[in-house]
Amino acid sequence: MMNDLNPGDLGRRAEAMLEELAAISAEPDRLVRLFLSPEHRRAADLVAQWMREIGLDVFEDEIGNVRGRIGKPPYLVLGSHIDTVIDAGRYDGPLGVVAPILAVDTLQRMKQLPPIGLELVAFGDEEGSRFHSTLPSSAALAGHFDPRHLTITDRDGVSFADALRAYGKNPDKIPEGAIPPGDAAGYVEVHIEQGPVLETEDQPLGVVSAIVGQTRLQMTITGESGHAGTVPMNLRRDALAGAAEMTLLAEQIARDFSSDHMVATVGQIEARPGAANIVPGVVRFTLDLRTASDAARSTAIERFEHEARAIAERRHLGFAVDPIHRIATTPADQALQDQLASAALAVGAKPLKLASGAGHDGLMMSKLCPIAMLFVRCKAGVSHNPAEYASPQDMGFAIAALVRFIEQFKPSASR
Amino acid sequence: MMNDLNPGDLGRRAEAMLEELAAISAEPDRLVRLFLSPEHRRAADLVAQWMREIGLDVFEDEIGNVRGRIGKPPYLVLGSHIDTVIDAGRYDGPLGVVAPILAVDTLQRMKQLPPIGLELVAFGDEEGSRFHSTLPSSAALAGHFDPRHLTITDRDGVSFADALRAYGKNPDKIPEGAIPPGDAAGYVEVHIEQGPVLETEDQPLGVVSAIVGQTRLQMTITGESGHAGTVPMNLRRDALAGAAEMTLLAEQIARDFSSDHMVATVGQIEARPGAANIVPGVVRFTLDLRTASDAARSTAIERFEHEARAIAERRHLGFAVDPIHRIATTPADQALQDQLASAALAVGAKPLKLASGAGHDGLMMSKLCPIAMLFVRCKAGVSHNPAEYASPQDMGFAIAALVRFIEQFKPSASR
Repeated sequence: MMNDLNPGDLGRRAEAMLEELAAISAEPDRLVRLFLSPEHRRAADLVAQWMREIGLDVFEDEIGNVRGRIGKPPYLVLGSHIDTVIDAGRYDGPLGVVAPILAVDTLQRMKQLPPIGLELVAFGDEEGSRFHSTLPSSAALAGHFDPRHLTITDRDGVSFADALRAYGKNPDKIPEGAIPPGDAAGYVEVHIEQGPVLETEDQPLGVVSAIVGQTRLQMTITGESGHAGTVPMNLRRDALAGAAEMTLLAEQIARDFSSDHMVATVGQIEARPGAANIVPGVVRFTLDLRTASDAARSTAIERFEHEARAIAERRHLGFAVDPIHRIATTPADQALQDQLASAALAVGAKPLKLASGAGHDGLMMSKLCPIAMLFVRCKAGVSHNPAEYASPQDMGFAIAALVRFIEQFKPSASR
Repeated sequence: MMNDLNPGDLGRRAEAMLEELAAISAEPDRLVRLFLSPEHRRAADLVAQWMREIGLDVFEDEIGNVRGRIGKPPYLVLGSHIDTVIDAGRYDGPLGVVAPILAVDTLQRMKQLPPIGLELVAFGDEEGSRFHSTLPSSAALAGHFDPRHLTITDRDGVSFADALRAYGKNPDKIPEGAIPPGDAAGYVEVHIEQGPVLETEDQPLGVVSAIVGQTRLQMTITGESGHAGTVPMNLRRDALAGAAEMTLLAEQIARDFSSDHMVATVGQIEARPGAANIVPGVVRFTLDLRTASDAARSTAIERFEHEARAIAERRHLGFAVDPIHRIATTPADQALQDQLASAALAVGAKPLKLASGAGHDGLMMSKLCPIAMLFVRCKAGVSHNPAEYASPQDMGFAIAALVRFIEQFKPSASR
């Protein structure tokens, strides 16, 4: 059977399919494919056609997920998302939709379909680029859709519910699309790493140990604006100087927790009034802090808030923290990890074990069933960017490993 | 004569005139009076009427300055500007236009006009709020108008030259309005302090020793954007963390030069791409650094550039500096300072000597003649803001001092 698997060939087929998907964009010069847009419709139709071509029973649920089944429940669920960020690359999401289609096609040709049923899925909204939504598509599949999502509006004021209706869906029936607990034997997603670790370690594949937890905070620092020429340094309450000190504090804390692979990022900052000749009176900035250790994350956040408050007090600044979200670490299922690692070894890769710093649909799917992820090396760790790239060879390794994984799949005993 | 001067009465008259001017705004709910706008026209006409009422020969030059003369050259020139920033207070500029009108009116009533001629002026553009212009109105009066100003466009794409024409002026004739060297015996401006020093020292008036020099730089820090969850701390090139360190460096340098009353401000900062979950790849920020010592300013800027570059190198960041402008310190004329101080003492104030951290038309007028400025205490040091406030009593002290100053004026021997 091994001889039937040609990673180079599988990778080239994946590349051609990704190219076809990447051509479906709302803008001619960059890739923009938002949830429930005309481009979503076209991409969903293309994926549905591919699924039908390999013999799946294809349907769409009421939140717009494209789903293709073969065999009987319980299903091994395989998939990813087809929405994109604005000015996206072509791999983040689509690779995890295309890979199982090619894997199942290969298994069909080899007549090696496993006894367990398979469900392939293309989620409509993972990025949350249109609505400020949190994994509503996989939440719906897992039976955890939060109806509060329906009232969120996009930039044009269109609600999530109205956008669904315009897409031909009935928001009230979203819960009916959920896979019943017990009907899902596991969820496995192939995805580019979105980080530089596999490239640095010179390996094509990685098996994800966990999707790391994260805390995101919004800070508001309030000082007093004043003329840059006339307010002496000792009479200033400069909100930006305070925010600068807190930015470096966040960086230092993450470095101090290097054994937990902690990362901390101040990604957004706004200083008001924002003129070169005015001392900033108000600064708002975000902190995003992640690590696989929930305990370390909690300790680090406490330290940040404590020390940042001390900075504010010393500088006579107001300090307010708004929690944006807190997500606990989601471990990948150990048995599925082991099976993925064996499958990768079987096709000639030496898979690294690594945590996913990015969130994925597995966060929601883990509420339904055991999950695992297979990471594919990507160039320079770049994602969410037109420069995003995974080589056909590496994608081919992932698809070949997925073939082996499905073929050998044993439902985990962990649930 | 002293008995004829009632600061309280003069202050109330000033307040009424400032209120009348403040009613002339492009917007109903905030004060916006831009150069060469319909509001400029109305304010200029009102000031011209006031000047005529006190017996001046009034004319407008070809850049829109309102000018009123009495007596023969050389003239002691007294004035300020009638344009405003957006959402302005009512004192910055207009107080220096109204004060000499009331002072000359008082001298007329006392029949104490000095032998020297007087020219009162209301400049049309000091703030540069419409065009990114640098004191073009006083430059024109001083014979140093830079014709490159004529091509600058406002937000609507209207050029400085076209705006002048629409205002009924002939840009080609701007140089003809300059006061010939030798015809100006001095330039004196009354202005709110725009800082907290007089209030902190509990004094109504200050005599300006110098308009401090300033250097303004624009920095561009180039790192590499990346996913906030997937790029390990040790592989990051975070442009914002670098900029934060440089912001604190600028603050530290100003503190180290406290004996030179140095101030340093990072007032504008922009981090791109500017998402909470992306490591900033490019940050642009401004530095505005001022002190009355040109040598200290030069040393401080060198130190900033040197140490900021070292920060960038250590963090593997690109570092580019664009100088926006460098303005040397403009000392006030010592003899004029002494005469202003004597005049202030004569009306019962104990004037503080202090530098002006803000720029003023005196910068340009100093190219023509000796200059001096009389500062008036303002509430909490606030300016460029509707909360800007100077009390009638303090303004009255300034006008009374100006009366005494004009009455006793002796041309400086320093030129």
